[in-house]
Amino acid sequence: MSEASAQVQADLDRLLPLLDSLLTKPFREGEAIRLAEAMRYSLEAGGKRVRPVLCMLACEAVGGTADQALPGALALEYVHTYSLIHDDLPAMDDDDLRRGRPTNHKVFGEGHAILAGDALLTEAFGVLAASDLDPARRAEALLLLAVGSGWRGMAGGQALDLEAEARAKAHRLVKRDGPKGEAQEGPSVGETIATYDLDHLRLIHRLKTGALLRASLEIGAVLGGATSANRAALRAYGEAIGLAFQIQDDILDTTATDADLGKRAGKDAGKGKITYPSLLGLDGARKALSEATETALCHLASLPNRNSLAAWARYLAQRAK
Amino acid sequence: MSEASAQVQADLDRLLPLLDSLLTKPFREGEAIRLAEAMRYSLEAGGKRVRPVLCMLACEAVGGTADQALPGALALEYVHTYSLIHDDLPAMDDDDLRRGRPTNHKVFGEGHAILAGDALLTEAFGVLAASDLDPARRAEALLLLAVGSGWRGMAGGQALDLEAEARAKAHRLVKRDGPKGEAQEGPSVGETIATYDLDHLRLIHRLKTGALLRASLEIGAVLGGATSANRAALRAYGEAIGLAFQIQDDILDTTATDADLGKRAGKDAGKGKITYPSLLGLDGARKALSEATETALCHLASLPNRNSLAAWARYLAQRAK
Repeated sequence: MSEASAQVQADLDRLLPLLDSLLTKPFREGEAIRLAEAMRYSLEAGGKRVRPVLCMLACEAVGGTADQALPGALALEYVHTYSLIHDDLPAMDDDDLRRGRPTNHKVFGEGHAILAGDALLTEAFGVLAASDLDPARRAEALLLLAVGSGWRGMAGGQALDLEAEARAKAHRLVKRDGPKGEAQEGPSVGETIATYDLDHLRLIHRLKTGALLRASLEIGAVLGGATSANRAALRAYGEAIGLAFQIQDDILDTTATDADLGKRAGKDAGKGKITYPSLLGLDGARKALSEATETALCHLASLPNRNSLAAWARYLAQRAK
Repeated sequence: MSEASAQVQADLDRLLPLLDSLLTKPFREGEAIRLAEAMRYSLEAGGKRVRPVLCMLACEAVGGTADQALPGALALEYVHTYSLIHDDLPAMDDDDLRRGRPTNHKVFGEGHAILAGDALLTEAFGVLAASDLDPARRAEALLLLAVGSGWRGMAGGQALDLEAEARAKAHRLVKRDGPKGEAQEGPSVGETIATYDLDHLRLIHRLKTGALLRASLEIGAVLGGATSANRAALRAYGEAIGLAFQIQDDILDTTATDADLGKRAGKDAGKGKITYPSLLGLDGARKALSEATETALCHLASLPNRNSLAAWARYLAQRAK
């Protein structure tokens, strides 16, 4: 185990029990029990809890405590989980498997999956609003969460991604089979570059995955009472690891097996979805990943407690899934 | 025009221009333009803006101004609009028409309709969080919005409604055609009462439509700095008009034509959905509506400025669509 992995593991061992003990607690009694069950199902599916942990570490990095960031951490995991449930729906990415288990709509039906996502998104704001945090910091955190997850953030990125995929698909149909042809499987890099370039790919990821990661760091900073310089540094760190995270995700999708990922490997490429390896080649993508990681580390330089976040940046670039 | 209708119209003429000028303003520039277009499409579909207007009137009823309630009013209309977009989806109520226009997913596709709903829900919390309202009142309003719209409120009610409809459908299949039979069209009151009684119907509506109406009144009260007695009175008023609103909706679905409603009339009954007229008969439903309206009026007795809200209670019971 590398030094970075060991530090990350130590932080997870310290922070996850606190988080996990509270994450599904609100959804254990009430009238809509099947909906609550659907919400718990996806919250309990595991995953690294990257966003809440980064939020708590950001709070600690500026001199706060993990406890102070806890309502923000819970809110971020609710938003992230809602986004996975909705992204997996047939009208979106149409995934049957997530973290090795059937996706929410496969178990609970599409209607309940949509509502479980809606209710988790709502609860994210509820848990922050109900907290006993300083009212000004609370309002600031709520606003950061709304901006990071809304139409100028995560939801907007997902919309752009859907549109780009539809354009790439239409383009393939015309190129391969003439106007009346049917789609064929398999990637087609040369063709799709014409409809979808690196700048646009970066924009999509900056919104789709980057915005909530940036918000995770910045919410942690705000709840920890950061100076505006430290807050900006953490935001920039979040931007850089968001990019690194996405590049590594694309690399893993290209190189890993189903069992490694807990989902169908190569699916993105198979759907003709443009990825960093398909645009830059595998070596080019690895170089871009390394640069993004270095950028993230630079932004931590001025923070009092930077070890944990530095380890996370290195860990995200090394991770195998 | 009745006295109540005239008062309601005067309030709408006074309050709607302010609301409508701000409602779609945030969604005019940005990167996800197609998503923004989908959000505006449903916000601009019209409707009476019942929730935001009640919120502003509640604020005035306790001595505040409509301006003070404006961020809450916008938030409520965003939540209401998101709920309509998601309720219309094929996996939910599967409606093609809403307020006389094609539903959001018919125009923008299911993926964008889901995201437009998500983004509107997110923006609801964003607009409240970004407001310059007193921080304590703002946090209280945010919490009321989350509770009213989440899994213990509106989303929970929609989930229970989906489940009840699925049970009623399964029950009809068995009764009419034996275990292997296919579904037939048309209502079947006697059969469905067995799976779905009046208490359960009330619970569903109390959550599905009532919770956000109660929140509308209570948010207005909080933003207007209401005493706790006045806040409770407005909440109880909201509960009563929520019930009246739903009964009248069911009566209209039974008696109106497509053109009256701007959607397919009789659809609920046609799907075997239980309604107040199907459980109580049309006369029984009208009596229940009248009782709920009287209850609403009683709760206004102690408020300083109660005329507008009294007119709304009478108007909701009389409305033709």
